[in-house]
Amino acid sequence: MPSTNLSFENRDAHRAWLAAQAALPAGFRVGCTRFEFMPKEAPKPAKMTLTLLALDEPTTSFAAMFTRNAFPGAPIIVGRKRLAEASVGAVIINNKISNVCAPGGVEASEQICAATAQALGLSPTQVLPSSTGVIGWSLPTDTMVGALPAAVGALRAGSILPAAEGIVTTDLYPKIRRATVGGGSIVGIAKGAGMIEPNMATMLVYILTDIAVPRAELRPMLARAVDASFNAISVDSDTSTSDTVVALSSGRVPFQDWGTFERGLHQVCRDLAEDVVRNGEGIRHVIRVTVKNAASLGLARSIGKAVVNGPLFKCAVAGNDPNVGRLIQAIGKHVGAHAPGTNLSKLSAKMGGIEIFANGVFQLDPTKESALVAHLKSAELYPSVPSKDGIFTAPIDYPPHERAVELEIDIGNGAASAAVIGGDLTHEYVSENADYRS
Amino acid sequence: MPSTNLSFENRDAHRAWLAAQAALPAGFRVGCTRFEFMPKEAPKPAKMTLTLLALDEPTTSFAAMFTRNAFPGAPIIVGRKRLAEASVGAVIINNKISNVCAPGGVEASEQICAATAQALGLSPTQVLPSSTGVIGWSLPTDTMVGALPAAVGALRAGSILPAAEGIVTTDLYPKIRRATVGGGSIVGIAKGAGMIEPNMATMLVYILTDIAVPRAELRPMLARAVDASFNAISVDSDTSTSDTVVALSSGRVPFQDWGTFERGLHQVCRDLAEDVVRNGEGIRHVIRVTVKNAASLGLARSIGKAVVNGPLFKCAVAGNDPNVGRLIQAIGKHVGAHAPGTNLSKLSAKMGGIEIFANGVFQLDPTKESALVAHLKSAELYPSVPSKDGIFTAPIDYPPHERAVELEIDIGNGAASAAVIGGDLTHEYVSENADYRS
Repeated sequence: MPSTNLSFENRDAHRAWLAAQAALPAGFRVGCTRFEFMPKEAPKPAKMTLTLLALDEPTTSFAAMFTRNAFPGAPIIVGRKRLAEASVGAVIINNKISNVCAPGGVEASEQICAATAQALGLSPTQVLPSSTGVIGWSLPTDTMVGALPAAVGALRAGSILPAAEGIVTTDLYPKIRRATVGGGSIVGIAKGAGMIEPNMATMLVYILTDIAVPRAELRPMLARAVDASFNAISVDSDTSTSDTVVALSSGRVPFQDWGTFERGLHQVCRDLAEDVVRNGEGIRHVIRVTVKNAASLGLARSIGKAVVNGPLFKCAVAGNDPNVGRLIQAIGKHVGAHAPGTNLSKLSAKMGGIEIFANGVFQLDPTKESALVAHLKSAELYPSVPSKDGIFTAPIDYPPHERAVELEIDIGNGAASAAVIGGDLTHEYVSENADYRS
Repeated sequence: MPSTNLSFENRDAHRAWLAAQAALPAGFRVGCTRFEFMPKEAPKPAKMTLTLLALDEPTTSFAAMFTRNAFPGAPIIVGRKRLAEASVGAVIINNKISNVCAPGGVEASEQICAATAQALGLSPTQVLPSSTGVIGWSLPTDTMVGALPAAVGALRAGSILPAAEGIVTTDLYPKIRRATVGGGSIVGIAKGAGMIEPNMATMLVYILTDIAVPRAELRPMLARAVDASFNAISVDSDTSTSDTVVALSSGRVPFQDWGTFERGLHQVCRDLAEDVVRNGEGIRHVIRVTVKNAASLGLARSIGKAVVNGPLFKCAVAGNDPNVGRLIQAIGKHVGAHAPGTNLSKLSAKMGGIEIFANGVFQLDPTKESALVAHLKSAELYPSVPSKDGIFTAPIDYPPHERAVELEIDIGNGAASAAVIGGDLTHEYVSENADYRS
């Protein structure tokens, strides 16, 4: 469950809340610069934002997790090498081009790191690179190096909001979450969900803390937090070639209670993960599936993912249609293919707290049906309306509420449970991903 | 590849071709009746067609394959038992209600079989039942039994067309394919693809032959043919609770060349499978993926399915957008998750015969881009146009051509190959599956 139940009436109210979340932990500064460039592969100019996250002093306490896609972007290849380094002093992030499977991609990423290091008095291996945007295009390295001094000059302590805004592509709004831990804080920002740039999805997440957590504690804690948050969401089942989660500690605030720290880290990750889904491409309903009493955690999570990735059920939710036949079909499809022989005779399912399936048969009547429709409508973020030219776009750039379609599936055949978050499949998704060219 | 490369200018031309395909093999008759009934679960009357496939004499040579969904419909449960019987004399098929997870579903299916058997002078275990349509509703058994004499009275030899039309739900057109083998023939009909009824998808396929093929030969041949055809297609990755493929031989035409028979069976299955995709919900482009030189058949097929089930790539195809970044992402997503460590350094990919990826980087230029767009447009079945109320529907009820988006992925790392057929993800799909209620 999310740690908040917020609602915002308009963009200004949401921005005011974000500003309050954005206080940077001690020991960090952020700076951005935006510029136009001419891509080698396109006929017209494009715009890029370069975002710099800098530590006042390099830290040995850093952690990062990357996509499992077998065609990782060049910054992922470089980032994996950086994990073996003694310390990190900065992260340099660009949007617009993801630097994936482009000729000379790794060399380009290393060139940007070297230039960043020179500007900040670091060694090149102390800089982590990230890129998001079009797949296959080449980074405009000369233009980026030329723009670096402006990003360095913009470095400020105080607020992470410029970075949260700098890393986005077509996100509708920036995403920031924080937890207070001891005398310090954990602050995270995220971009993405679904395919953001016309050519690619990327989820980039940066988590900064001033709590003095050693690397040996931070890395396994981040792995557990990512597993329970970003690995438990799915907008459209596609896996970016650039997904990255980075955690950095400035070590300014002494603290020893790692249980408390880890709870804060989990909360920030879970809240950001849900933000990513809520702001996912074309999503009009967030769907939260809690699977209980499964034989294993893996089966619990994969059943949850089968539900939120089932296109028929996703379409039904988009239409506020409590089509529970499609829900049971999605569960049966997954179990039949991946866990045949699983005893499903005790399976029961609820939507919005209302029992819809038990003892092998549906449990429905017209009164329940009306209540289920009401539950779906209450979770809708905005109604779907096409523009005059038939294109569907989101009419809001803030989250009007944090309600979700709540599903509970009790397998009745084990002790493991998992929560998975996803969304519906809408005309807005198709418009964003099919209609932008013809 | 399909055995034909047909095109039809209008519905009448397509229907004339179907009529020519429809000649029934010797020893079979088909009959249908359509009637209105009052569902227990809905406030207004609905219509159902009862379709009867009857053998002049019961046959020992029958085969059937069923869905692997872990929540199979009642007719699947009954059908699996029938496989152990000595002979079968008829198949009774209804549309509108799929009889899945409804109270007393198996008893209802058996009741329909018993009534059919009585009308035809068979034993109840000599009748195979099939149902397609809404999940969770109960069969109107009394009304169906009352309608049976009309179906029996309509039984005719000559044409399978009434059955091909009788089994459909929201299919745009009936699907019939035939192969001539020796002095006899193999004729198949199919319904479905994607979610046909508002509540459920079902693919039903019936293959009739007068060739005297023994059961012991027919069953493994059907398994191989289904594996290479219906198991190699995906409209939306969802697996029906009712999928059924039945093959029946009347044994009228002596023949011994099982290699020739099996080739004819494969051709009929492959052509029907491609018809099912071409007529799949909202499909405006058929996508054919040929994966070559993979380490195993399983990997070749699963990479092909990852491509045709990747929503981002499917949307790109819908928009005639040669977004090869999404294609490579889909391959990398699958290999990273399911075959990590696979060497992809020799992977190359072609679209419409044009090389788009090799040696780890994209192989693109503006001339190729134009050719790729032209290839996508040539495979489009119809342009997408919303109605005045924003609903997208197919403007045709016949297949205007049999061209597909042709993808060739050479893994360069093994000897196995597979062909997988799927389609794009369109506004028409979302309209059919989300917009019908609110």
